[in-house]
Amino acid sequence: MKQPAVLFKNIQIVTPMPGGPVLSLTNAFVAVAAGEIRYVGQFEDTAVQILKDCGFAEYESYDGRRKILWPTMANTHGHIPMTLMRNQADDAVLHTWLFEMIFPREKYLTPDHVLNGTRLGMAEMIRSGTGTAADMYYYSESVVEAALESGMRLNVCFDGKATGSDGKTHLVRPSLEKFIADCQTYGQGRINPALLVHSLYLYEPDLHRELSETAQALNCFVQVHIAETKREVEESLAKYGKRPASMLAELGYFKSPTIAAHCVHLDDAEREILKAHSVFVAHNPTSNLKLGSGIADVAAMLRAGLRVGLGTDGAASNNNLNLYQEMRLASLLAKGTSGDAALLPADALIEMATLHGQKGLGFERSGCIAVGYEADLQILNADQPAMWPLGEPTSALVYSADAAFVESLMVAGQWLLYKNDLQTLDEEKIKADALRSSARLNP
Amino acid sequence: MKQPAVLFKNIQIVTPMPGGPVLSLTNAFVAVAAGEIRYVGQFEDTAVQILKDCGFAEYESYDGRRKILWPTMANTHGHIPMTLMRNQADDAVLHTWLFEMIFPREKYLTPDHVLNGTRLGMAEMIRSGTGTAADMYYYSESVVEAALESGMRLNVCFDGKATGSDGKTHLVRPSLEKFIADCQTYGQGRINPALLVHSLYLYEPDLHRELSETAQALNCFVQVHIAETKREVEESLAKYGKRPASMLAELGYFKSPTIAAHCVHLDDAEREILKAHSVFVAHNPTSNLKLGSGIADVAAMLRAGLRVGLGTDGAASNNNLNLYQEMRLASLLAKGTSGDAALLPADALIEMATLHGQKGLGFERSGCIAVGYEADLQILNADQPAMWPLGEPTSALVYSADAAFVESLMVAGQWLLYKNDLQTLDEEKIKADALRSSARLNP
Repeated sequence: MKQPAVLFKNIQIVTPMPGGPVLSLTNAFVAVAAGEIRYVGQFEDTAVQILKDCGFAEYESYDGRRKILWPTMANTHGHIPMTLMRNQADDAVLHTWLFEMIFPREKYLTPDHVLNGTRLGMAEMIRSGTGTAADMYYYSESVVEAALESGMRLNVCFDGKATGSDGKTHLVRPSLEKFIADCQTYGQGRINPALLVHSLYLYEPDLHRELSETAQALNCFVQVHIAETKREVEESLAKYGKRPASMLAELGYFKSPTIAAHCVHLDDAEREILKAHSVFVAHNPTSNLKLGSGIADVAAMLRAGLRVGLGTDGAASNNNLNLYQEMRLASLLAKGTSGDAALLPADALIEMATLHGQKGLGFERSGCIAVGYEADLQILNADQPAMWPLGEPTSALVYSADAAFVESLMVAGQWLLYKNDLQTLDEEKIKADALRSSARLNP
Repeated sequence: MKQPAVLFKNIQIVTPMPGGPVLSLTNAFVAVAAGEIRYVGQFEDTAVQILKDCGFAEYESYDGRRKILWPTMANTHGHIPMTLMRNQADDAVLHTWLFEMIFPREKYLTPDHVLNGTRLGMAEMIRSGTGTAADMYYYSESVVEAALESGMRLNVCFDGKATGSDGKTHLVRPSLEKFIADCQTYGQGRINPALLVHSLYLYEPDLHRELSETAQALNCFVQVHIAETKREVEESLAKYGKRPASMLAELGYFKSPTIAAHCVHLDDAEREILKAHSVFVAHNPTSNLKLGSGIADVAAMLRAGLRVGLGTDGAASNNNLNLYQEMRLASLLAKGTSGDAALLPADALIEMATLHGQKGLGFERSGCIAVGYEADLQILNADQPAMWPLGEPTSALVYSADAAFVESLMVAGQWLLYKNDLQTLDEEKIKADALRSSARLNP
């Protein structure tokens, strides 16, 4: 892995700070070497000296004029290989979408198709400022393979369930343990394994208890869909007399780090439960609207002290993996549905998309432009009519920026996108492979 | 005005058709000459013969592989020069926004600032696929000047009110008549003048009657804000005992072509009134959310038979002029607020953004890729991970496209954007001038 030394010069910085406000620094310098941020400030001489002290007398100068340097974003919920089903399942209600459009395609999936779809999704995410993603899908080894190639950080689900001799579904714990060990061995700190818990409604209580006990025993991440639709809540109440988040807690979950996707239909008590267990919420505003699921009350979540990040969900219900659009939409929805235009200001979205999202996926040293953090950053070219004049840089990023203005992106000091060219992925090959795989799902 | 002959080859076409479905043609040919569309179909030989028959033995070949050709969009409501206030007035409720952020800046406006802000807005719109705009602002002559330079089509308000000898505000009808005549003389069919009627609440009934009578007498377009906020409706009920749209009808409006912006808070009776008068509605989903105004019920409007287009409003409440974002958002909001994912399908948005919008602003021969229509079209480069695989081309445009993928745009056969370069506007000069003007509004 190539980790050059780079000095970003005369650049506009925007960064959240742990426990502090979002900072905006104009005409600043950032030095990166051996994968970490070494200097952030106003003085070029100091930056150069620090690079020398780290053993980097030679470094690349990156002209930052009319550009914004800020952390890579974290896409906290998605099904990356579903790029293969992009623009093929639209304007349909959830049941039609799932049973008539998605499931008939998914029955043709192979590890090779998943690999091709994941590579495509990662190319798209890197181009639009995302350096870290969560994934919940099948054939996780293929998803991990694409992540190792691309250089992205990944919080990735493993399923590992099988029918036992009793005819019931059980978790095959050794296969999960092997997956976790492999991620730790080969992941270079970039791959965080998670246990897939699709949802309350898909499994019976016995299996849920097995899964929750294993997650706790291994202190393993869990990714789970919670309260995406009203119907899910109604069915949970009918079956268990409890709402989904309450019932999942009762089944023993939330004792290891948990990423709860959607949470569109929570009540106050459930927000308290999630808060008490430090559950991280992945908010997917586009997908929730597009499937007619509703609008999650993020302002209420933040008031309750919950940690919230942003997600795109899969490209079959979005139809892209563009977190700039999710930032903007999340803020607009909070304002428009409450009537309070001051809700979810630009700073809150910057935090959700970067620092909070990275932390939620378990990457504690990403999401902030400060000395000692991993060099996970993106450069946005703001020299565009659509971002002119720049005004407040945080507003510019959330309300006027376009993902296509991202020109460069690095993770752990490695360029994944450099001046509009992908560095780790072969875009033309990926597109050809993905097109072939996509066609195979529509025989 | 240069109007080259162009043959677009092997291109994906998406176009609404008057009274028909949205058409999608793969691997097609489009011939343009002398400002009009001359051929649309599958046969290159026929296209070439037709160009020859029009007297164009020489023409440019435009390689359309992996590209989408579709009509330019119409931005049906906005305040273009407010680009100067971009990213400087955010996360504030309407009253604070208007009285503490916007009005203090607007008092420094000059015709020169308006010219600079409009040029900037037009550069941005052309780059994002918009060939036609509505404008409601001050110093309309400057707005028209920028439109004539840029080559965009414009439906533009004129104010022309002054205090009379009785101490009251009156319309100075000769100045309006001169403005209308000038637009017709110099506009080459691209400039449609309109009378500015800010809103019900800003004027007294006597002035409203004067304005409505004049609009009817001159059969002049009217641009008016209607029912943007709940407060506006409540105040109208308190003052007149009627809701805004009803009251405006009673004051004599809607007898000439009318563009009604926002219409966030309409009841069934008002939708009937607007429908009966063929009032055109400009839907501004981003701005309505961002200022906390609410969500217009577009599905109900369409069911009532109303004609609806899309608008960005000004960049001070958006914060860009990107109709791709408005298409996507309008569809998502209709689905998410109703719970019906089949509402406002991609085709409906394609129509609203193009054919319906153009017609609403009075450009009857734009918005459709068919023989005999004006050559108002844009080329989007779909060779991007975010639009791969393409899938259904209408879904691709509405749900996965990014405005920055627009590479070329022509109006009446004249290139305004050609392979990513603006053709009629000097972008660097415009940015420098706009920066200076923006600073002057913040002394």
